Amino acid sequence: MFRENLQNRLAVYLVMGLDAYEGRTALETAKAALEGGITMLQLREKKAPLSRVLKEARPIRELCREFGVPFIVNDRVDVALLLEADGVHVGQDDLPGSEARRLMGKDAIVGISAGTMEEVEWAVQNGADYLGVGAIYSTLTKGDAGEPIGTRLLGQIKQRWSRIPMVGIGGIGHGQAAPVVAAGADGVAVVSAIVHSRDPRLAAERLKLEVLGAR
Amino acid sequence: MFRENLQNRLAVYLVMGLDAYEGRTALETAKAALEGGITMLQLREKKAPLSRVLKEARPIRELCREFGVPFIVNDRVDVALLLEADGVHVGQDDLPGSEARRLMGKDAIVGISAGTMEEVEWAVQNGADYLGVGAIYSTLTKGDAGEPIGTRLLGQIKQRWSRIPMVGIGGIGHGQAAPVVAAGADGVAVVSAIVHSRDPRLAAERLKLEVLGAR
Repeated sequence: MFRENLQNRLAVYLVMGLDAYEGRTALETAKAALEGGITMLQLREKKAPLSRVLKEARPIRELCREFGVPFIVNDRVDVALLLEADGVHVGQDDLPGSEARRLMGKDAIVGISAGTMEEVEWAVQNGADYLGVGAIYSTLTKGDAGEPIGTRLLGQIKQRWSRIPMVGIGGIGHGQAAPVVAAGADGVAVVSAIVHSRDPRLAAERLKLEVLGAR
Repeated sequence: MFRENLQNRLAVYLVMGLDAYEGRTALETAKAALEGGITMLQLREKKAPLSRVLKEARPIRELCREFGVPFIVNDRVDVALLLEADGVHVGQDDLPGSEARRLMGKDAIVGISAGTMEEVEWAVQNGADYLGVGAIYSTLTKGDAGEPIGTRLLGQIKQRWSRIPMVGIGGIGHGQAAPVVAAGADGVAVVSAIVHSRDPRLAAERLKLEVLGAR
């Protein structure tokens, strides 16, 4: 049951689209990252035609199954259902978490993004299994991520809901994961630090060591 | 069974978002249009947060049920499932029709947009119950609708697949529905001609008379 023990599963959470980077296909990047020890993988593809998304995401989904790593789909619950994903991640403008769970079933992981305490409250009310909190640092990957909020909110959440699993997200590179965990997160969600890396396997390994070391 | 007798149900197909126009809420526009005799209604809302979409679309969905008119959701199959829609309408970049049907069940209506013969072929292969063909005329409503194609493709489709239900869509106003039907369409799908009208009930009535007169 992936919904259990989420704290540990959130250590190094790779968020990725389907574009190729550094001469690697998305599938090759996913494979290297899984070998490097990522603990969860989210498909966040906003532009590609959905027929392409289904086709190219299926082998990534299968790979996650082989590695025993939860495969999560961003925003589109319909795509998550078709890919037999282990869960969905929704933002504040996406389907409410409670509605996403109705479609996905009770065993699915439902993650919700939050950047303010109000958004955190809404996410908790909507039955979030974990929170994606950010943008922690400034990021070029997500145009609508807003101003960076730093790590302060993580501590405030921890104080109020000591048991809710959460990751920091947004511009987190090597050497920047430890303060996020020290502030209260269970781990880090990253795009660039792995996807744009020359060696995604090594990048995942290093991030994992940093997160585990900071716990 | 809404999937049956689709030709008649496609006579006047209202496509609408949730914005207010002419001092009316979307719900008020939908009610007037249903009273005026629209035969199908599609929710196409691309910008609003999905929590708002669910909340504001539910009464429109209920109204369609009362009038015995199929309620269709554009693009998002997850939203269609949550609203218990009678079907979905998908474009070429959305979920393939066959995948949409897997999620919606065999009784659901699946409509597919097409603007070229290649797209029509793809739509037919994907099990389209009806085609939305266009943009027939130039339109300001849909920014990505492409160059207007006129009514010629309608005739070509009719020649090749005489029995597939289809509507023309794109910039069709009063006095422009008859040539679309004469070219082979079962009806017209409209946004502005009803939504931006001062009297959506009358607009629907007039369009229906025009379509039925041209059959």
